[in-house]
Amino acid sequence: MIARYFKPLARHPGAFGLDDDAAILSPAPGYDVVLKTDAIVGGMHFFPNDPADAVARKALRVNLSDLAAKGAKPAGFLLSLILPKGVSSKWLADFARALGADAERYHCPLMGGDTDRTNGPVTIAISAFGTLPAGTMVRRSGAKFGDRVVVSGTIGDAALGLKLRQAPANAKQWKLDAAMRKHLLGRYLVPEPRNALAEALRVHASAAMDVSDGLAGDLAKLCRASGVAAEINVARVPLSPAARKALVADGKVIETILTGGDDYEVVATVPYAKMSSLVAAARIAGVALTEIGVVKAGEGARFLTLSGRELTFARASFSHF
Amino acid sequence: MIARYFKPLARHPGAFGLDDDAAILSPAPGYDVVLKTDAIVGGMHFFPNDPADAVARKALRVNLSDLAAKGAKPAGFLLSLILPKGVSSKWLADFARALGADAERYHCPLMGGDTDRTNGPVTIAISAFGTLPAGTMVRRSGAKFGDRVVVSGTIGDAALGLKLRQAPANAKQWKLDAAMRKHLLGRYLVPEPRNALAEALRVHASAAMDVSDGLAGDLAKLCRASGVAAEINVARVPLSPAARKALVADGKVIETILTGGDDYEVVATVPYAKMSSLVAAARIAGVALTEIGVVKAGEGARFLTLSGRELTFARASFSHF
Repeated sequence: MIARYFKPLARHPGAFGLDDDAAILSPAPGYDVVLKTDAIVGGMHFFPNDPADAVARKALRVNLSDLAAKGAKPAGFLLSLILPKGVSSKWLADFARALGADAERYHCPLMGGDTDRTNGPVTIAISAFGTLPAGTMVRRSGAKFGDRVVVSGTIGDAALGLKLRQAPANAKQWKLDAAMRKHLLGRYLVPEPRNALAEALRVHASAAMDVSDGLAGDLAKLCRASGVAAEINVARVPLSPAARKALVADGKVIETILTGGDDYEVVATVPYAKMSSLVAAARIAGVALTEIGVVKAGEGARFLTLSGRELTFARASFSHF
Repeated sequence: MIARYFKPLARHPGAFGLDDDAAILSPAPGYDVVLKTDAIVGGMHFFPNDPADAVARKALRVNLSDLAAKGAKPAGFLLSLILPKGVSSKWLADFARALGADAERYHCPLMGGDTDRTNGPVTIAISAFGTLPAGTMVRRSGAKFGDRVVVSGTIGDAALGLKLRQAPANAKQWKLDAAMRKHLLGRYLVPEPRNALAEALRVHASAAMDVSDGLAGDLAKLCRASGVAAEINVARVPLSPAARKALVADGKVIETILTGGDDYEVVATVPYAKMSSLVAAARIAGVALTEIGVVKAGEGARFLTLSGRELTFARASFSHF
């Protein structure tokens, strides 16, 4: 199985064509290796009937998203592929092809891995590695009073997409057209990690993390690690046309948008003096970046409406379905 | 869960106390990072009722064993801990305590990780990292004609231990006393990776790999990667008193010994001129090392009895229970 499906993906010289027991990374002198692992489990992070190529992309991209937020350049990944009996060779071929395509797209080659049987669901644990100049990883803990809070892309799409999977009737309630429905479902199915933004974040951000467990909860974590508060202008949180349509149809959707998971966007804080450079760099990188608030003294992330009312959420953070 | 059970294990400065999204390894200039991942799955690599501390040790040690065979010094590991509902806090506490003890014993600190839910069995995917001077990883592919073949420790114990788990009546058939039975069961339950031997292998071995899928199959892989053959003197394969007793009681056990898995010993090839230095280094390291054969021209690993008869096996390699 390894030789047939995965050997073609192992083009990094340190992967030794998957012919050895371990792989080698040789970071350039003065560079750190950034380490990250995240697993996805069938029935928890994806639906058992999701197509194999989407599962492969999600498994890798949830890890790439962390590398992006930390300012690291992808260097490679290890794969543990844990499969129940009866997975077809077509599933495997689709999985490997999509994984290979993403490995190439994000310059993050397969370095090694193992395959195992399970009596449970398809489970994929990936460890991804990045490199950056020593000591420059963007931490959660660097946010300072007065910094601006920015997010990439749009927020809430994936959480709404998950709701559509769980209750397709929502599409009618939210008055979504077919393209909007497809947009939200797609954002849940396959994240778009912001690796194009990594270098700009590394140079300009005072703190950053990827938004995987909901903007409200993740920003609260960043604030806690930095010993600061954040005040977010809810009206400035960037929404896709689909999310905006859903929100207009049902105001309660704001909670899903701000606390749902699977955005795989980046939330970062940036010193005011560096904002214009970061915005310019993001434009060059082709990633939308929106200023949504400001870092204050105190603790917690406060989400304020235009009228100055603070939103409170039934649950600040996200757990998978 | 992470804060309570795993934060105390994350003492490496690059782990940031598990308070960030990623960790940092900073290899010394001129050093490579060796990467390895191996997962273990309940019902496949361990029994669902195995104690949590044994599961933790096995999960880490199967990876440490590869680092040892490759000549790398452990640097740290990432953990994906995937649990069904209903795992008790005692199980978690025992798991974390044993993992922490091994992390300390093998100087391989927890760098980061994630925890996930599953509808399937307990599943643990660990990625382990080691370091060594650039370009010195011991490959599978370096064996040369005339090299000696050595193995660490004793072979076959874990495979016999698994048979005892599956059919306890074997203990009587094999005429094992209580201590022998316990020895074999213990060798299956918790591997003893040979990290103490890593530096000696790195300096002296021409090729090496850990024996996890059976000596016969793994040595055949090494021969294939090196483009050589190996001729093994079966009578010299080191056996524990328990394995020897079982073999005397039932000659067919030799197949289990040589093709069973889970040894987590090292098989290596060594130029003749370096044998005495390696043996001395192994003695200092406190790891038994036995010369069992020689590298020849050709292909395949041949196992010869004292009378010169070649053993043939129903299955050369191992699949888990």
